Amino acid sequence: MLRTHTCGELTIKDLGKEITLTGWVQKSRDLGGMTFVDIRDRYGITQLAFNSDDDADLRAKARELGREFVISVKGTVIERSSKNLKIATGEIEIKVSKLDILNPAKLPPFLIEDETDGGDDLRMKYRYLDLRRNPVRNNLVLRHKMAQEVRRYLDGLDFIEVETPVLIKSTPEGARDFVVPSRMNPGEFYALPQSPQTFKQLLMVSGFDRYFQIVKCFRDEDLRADRQPEFTQIDCEMAFIEQEDILNVFEGLIKNLFKNVKGIDLGEVPRMQYADAMRLYGSDKPDTRFGMQFVELTEVVKGADFPVFDNAELVVGINAKGCAEYTRKQLDELTDFVKRPQVGATGLVYCRYNNDGSLKSSVDKFYSEDALKKWAAAFGAEAGDLMLVMAGPAEKVRKQLNELRLEMGNRLGLRDKNTFAPLWVLDFPLLEWDEESGRYHAMHHPFTSPKPEDISLLDSKPGEVRANAYDMVINGTEIGGGSIRIHDRELQALMFKHLGFSKEEAQKQFGFLMEAFEFGAPPHGGIAFGFDRLVSIFAGLDSIRDVIAFPKNNSGRDVMIDSPSTISEEQLKELSIKTSN
Amino acid sequence: MLRTHTCGELTIKDLGKEITLTGWVQKSRDLGGMTFVDIRDRYGITQLAFNSDDDADLRAKARELGREFVISVKGTVIERSSKNLKIATGEIEIKVSKLDILNPAKLPPFLIEDETDGGDDLRMKYRYLDLRRNPVRNNLVLRHKMAQEVRRYLDGLDFIEVETPVLIKSTPEGARDFVVPSRMNPGEFYALPQSPQTFKQLLMVSGFDRYFQIVKCFRDEDLRADRQPEFTQIDCEMAFIEQEDILNVFEGLIKNLFKNVKGIDLGEVPRMQYADAMRLYGSDKPDTRFGMQFVELTEVVKGADFPVFDNAELVVGINAKGCAEYTRKQLDELTDFVKRPQVGATGLVYCRYNNDGSLKSSVDKFYSEDALKKWAAAFGAEAGDLMLVMAGPAEKVRKQLNELRLEMGNRLGLRDKNTFAPLWVLDFPLLEWDEESGRYHAMHHPFTSPKPEDISLLDSKPGEVRANAYDMVINGTEIGGGSIRIHDRELQALMFKHLGFSKEEAQKQFGFLMEAFEFGAPPHGGIAFGFDRLVSIFAGLDSIRDVIAFPKNNSGRDVMIDSPSTISEEQLKELSIKTSN
Repeated sequence: MLRTHTCGELTIKDLGKEITLTGWVQKSRDLGGMTFVDIRDRYGITQLAFNSDDDADLRAKARELGREFVISVKGTVIERSSKNLKIATGEIEIKVSKLDILNPAKLPPFLIEDETDGGDDLRMKYRYLDLRRNPVRNNLVLRHKMAQEVRRYLDGLDFIEVETPVLIKSTPEGARDFVVPSRMNPGEFYALPQSPQTFKQLLMVSGFDRYFQIVKCFRDEDLRADRQPEFTQIDCEMAFIEQEDILNVFEGLIKNLFKNVKGIDLGEVPRMQYADAMRLYGSDKPDTRFGMQFVELTEVVKGADFPVFDNAELVVGINAKGCAEYTRKQLDELTDFVKRPQVGATGLVYCRYNNDGSLKSSVDKFYSEDALKKWAAAFGAEAGDLMLVMAGPAEKVRKQLNELRLEMGNRLGLRDKNTFAPLWVLDFPLLEWDEESGRYHAMHHPFTSPKPEDISLLDSKPGEVRANAYDMVINGTEIGGGSIRIHDRELQALMFKHLGFSKEEAQKQFGFLMEAFEFGAPPHGGIAFGFDRLVSIFAGLDSIRDVIAFPKNNSGRDVMIDSPSTISEEQLKELSIKTSN
Repeated sequence: MLRTHTCGELTIKDLGKEITLTGWVQKSRDLGGMTFVDIRDRYGITQLAFNSDDDADLRAKARELGREFVISVKGTVIERSSKNLKIATGEIEIKVSKLDILNPAKLPPFLIEDETDGGDDLRMKYRYLDLRRNPVRNNLVLRHKMAQEVRRYLDGLDFIEVETPVLIKSTPEGARDFVVPSRMNPGEFYALPQSPQTFKQLLMVSGFDRYFQIVKCFRDEDLRADRQPEFTQIDCEMAFIEQEDILNVFEGLIKNLFKNVKGIDLGEVPRMQYADAMRLYGSDKPDTRFGMQFVELTEVVKGADFPVFDNAELVVGINAKGCAEYTRKQLDELTDFVKRPQVGATGLVYCRYNNDGSLKSSVDKFYSEDALKKWAAAFGAEAGDLMLVMAGPAEKVRKQLNELRLEMGNRLGLRDKNTFAPLWVLDFPLLEWDEESGRYHAMHHPFTSPKPEDISLLDSKPGEVRANAYDMVINGTEIGGGSIRIHDRELQALMFKHLGFSKEEAQKQFGFLMEAFEFGAPPHGGIAFGFDRLVSIFAGLDSIRDVIAFPKNNSGRDVMIDSPSTISEEQLKELSIKTSN
């Protein structure tokens, strides 16, 4: 090693030791006849001292060091006169006897500090410099620790990590595939996996019993909302289990991660029916760090000749505790919030339950104080509260009120990043109606099993069939989801039929899986966690981008290496393709 | 869980327990009024007993079970009358009280036994059935264990596992890339990584200090000789190190794997110069399980008017101990072996050192017994030995003799799969001449640093410049290789120049890396191990195919899922490409 110690380990116990350190110049400052240089590596920072009285040439050399120069120093550990007790090495410094510049550095385009002056674009172009910053590197160290811990836990439960192929087959179901032209099979393409779904099911057919993989997956989607074209899943599958077993094992995984990585005892994870989540929170991934559950007022408010409520399928609201004294301006902000195109509501009705016990609403023209008392009773509101009410088509208004609820949670400081509220959401619908294609799609994927008692509804009321499907949600973010799978050829064929596959299409795309089910497929199910998202929640970040070493931007570009890029005509020719743009 | 126990865990200690087992019917047999069924899962096999006297209906049902049916049974653990002490569960059986068929099975196309009757093609098409066989599943369990152990070792040494991107940039250097058309950037392509080389170097520039990753890599090569288009590397890099540090850390990794996975103490790994490996074994990956080193005879044999030797650049041979009594037929076989097109020699000269002390060669016309004694002295041969000699251009004849040496090792049983001879090969040449392109190529890759003392030879004798590059070899197979990297922009630019890159090409392809070197790049180096190959050596297999869950065939096809395949016109249009075959 070019060093005897790292920049994070020397302490008062090492006084007098002759050592060699290597690292980057963090900063330097002159003080009288002395120059002090902070040398940094991944492990910490150590102060170097150069004294003109000892060696004027050496000190002069030290004064020429620029930020981010890579240096090697030999010297002796001595006690510091002015100690910094905030860092491990803060009681000592190095009296330097030899200084070598291993590599000089140009001035970085932004500060390599915890708080940087670099904008997003610059930081992405020079990602290798951004990664020098503690907060960014710490995210990746956290990611590493979490990955090791996941493996340790699952390995301890006899799960086997199996690598499934990356070059697979394109299937139109689901999101868009990335494809890879095959040179050896002209005109044919591989696809990159959106998930190892069919392979992990085949491993269950193979008797692997318990499988997992931390694995890259790919989706060629438009990159709105913090998505990446390549992302990482903790992908798991078990055989001879029921839903309850999956919930227990993977609740254990998440609790274990919180315990061993963050030192947090998560407690038992509550469970909620999908239907209840939609009714009480207007979302299949409710943020349960705070209450503010939906209260339905449709029957309470009808018949007062207020057409907005009278004509509405659903009138529903939330009670913002202690917000009765919101100003007109604040209330206008909330109305503007729900009217934004992203939320899309037509308006917002409020009702103050004043501290003096009086009630005052924005629809006093239609509702007397006595009528408003009935509202308050329905909300369980008390003096000092603010009731916020919306009306419209049930599904739509619930989604809008969900946005308002989250906004109120933010305003009231109820969404603390250091509080973690996990939740299982259970019994998702099997199918969801897709307006665009005018048919039902699998809400989870086509391999999810319907609840046996609901199979009879497949023809008559497909939208009401519930699936053996579950999501884990933390703080309003879906971090994982899975299902008990179909393991019977006939039922799988029935599902494909209901999803609009012709027999030929089903056979072409998934014939191998249906055939596998005929050779002794065990009951099985599984789950996949979004690893990037899970790490970002552990790191207290809103974006997954900073838990990924080399992310892509919203156009799917890596601006650091400037990819994607054109390829040569020879390459295109070998691959038997032409560009047609 | 649908079971209370696995099929591998019940023993005599569990007598009397009421249990539920699930698994596959391995086989069944009738014996008087009894039917015995072996039920199998990943963990083992347990015998089920059905007695007509107890329940005739149940026994009748058991008789209808076919091979590979998935069943669930409830019953009581009882002592077996005829014990099988070879298996853990061999002293007990289950007196079954309830039998459920969870899924019937068609008759598999080949036997699910350790020795199967299935040919390669059939096994690949029904890979999910092949994976049920113990030897195949055990390979993947071994692979899992090795991966966990690699991570445990490196994590313990402060290495951080960082996921590098899969969608990167195509670079013509090296093997052919797989490419991925970008929908969002029409006419542009990502490439799949042949290795994370540049990213791991950037991580060193970022100060990550110690990086590793077990990662899929991709090469679009013609799939001769046990190659796969996607393969897995243990990819590692360290900063502030010298070659010696890399050798120590990763010798430790391999020793640790042998110790903890196979219980073998590997001892210290010997080291050999590349030049010596070529001279003594004719190979940069010598199989050192046995000696039989090359002996150069050029000077000894010259001047006897035997033109083949007189005109040869090199005359070189091996001494096959104890083979003096090889028959004429055996010697002809060896001659035929070296004349095969794959070896390409023109002939083979032999010299028997008979047990009676006399010497007899195939070139007695030119060499007297006294002359042959000089051969024997050069070989250190004794009575009973057989000297095998070849002649020709030095490089070519060494390669040919290498093949003969390995063949003799096989014939003499010197290449036992349970003996492990590791070796470091050091100081590889930096460049190698490529006949086809008429220029030098990087032997390792363009980022490998030349030995400082050899840099001055770059212009005059490029072929003689040695690199700080090293391979680890086990039993004649290269399992890993690496180098100390260039970390200086000027030297990297010089390397690109010598590899025939124009300034513009170098900038377009690797500008980001050269720029990164200007912002404070530390000295660094690394290594990558071929994980598939390493597992296959641990498993005692010749092919990597059986340590990969879902491998591709020699045309790069996955015959199970039938991939690659055509994609729709809409997909092509969205991607702005056309097929041109």
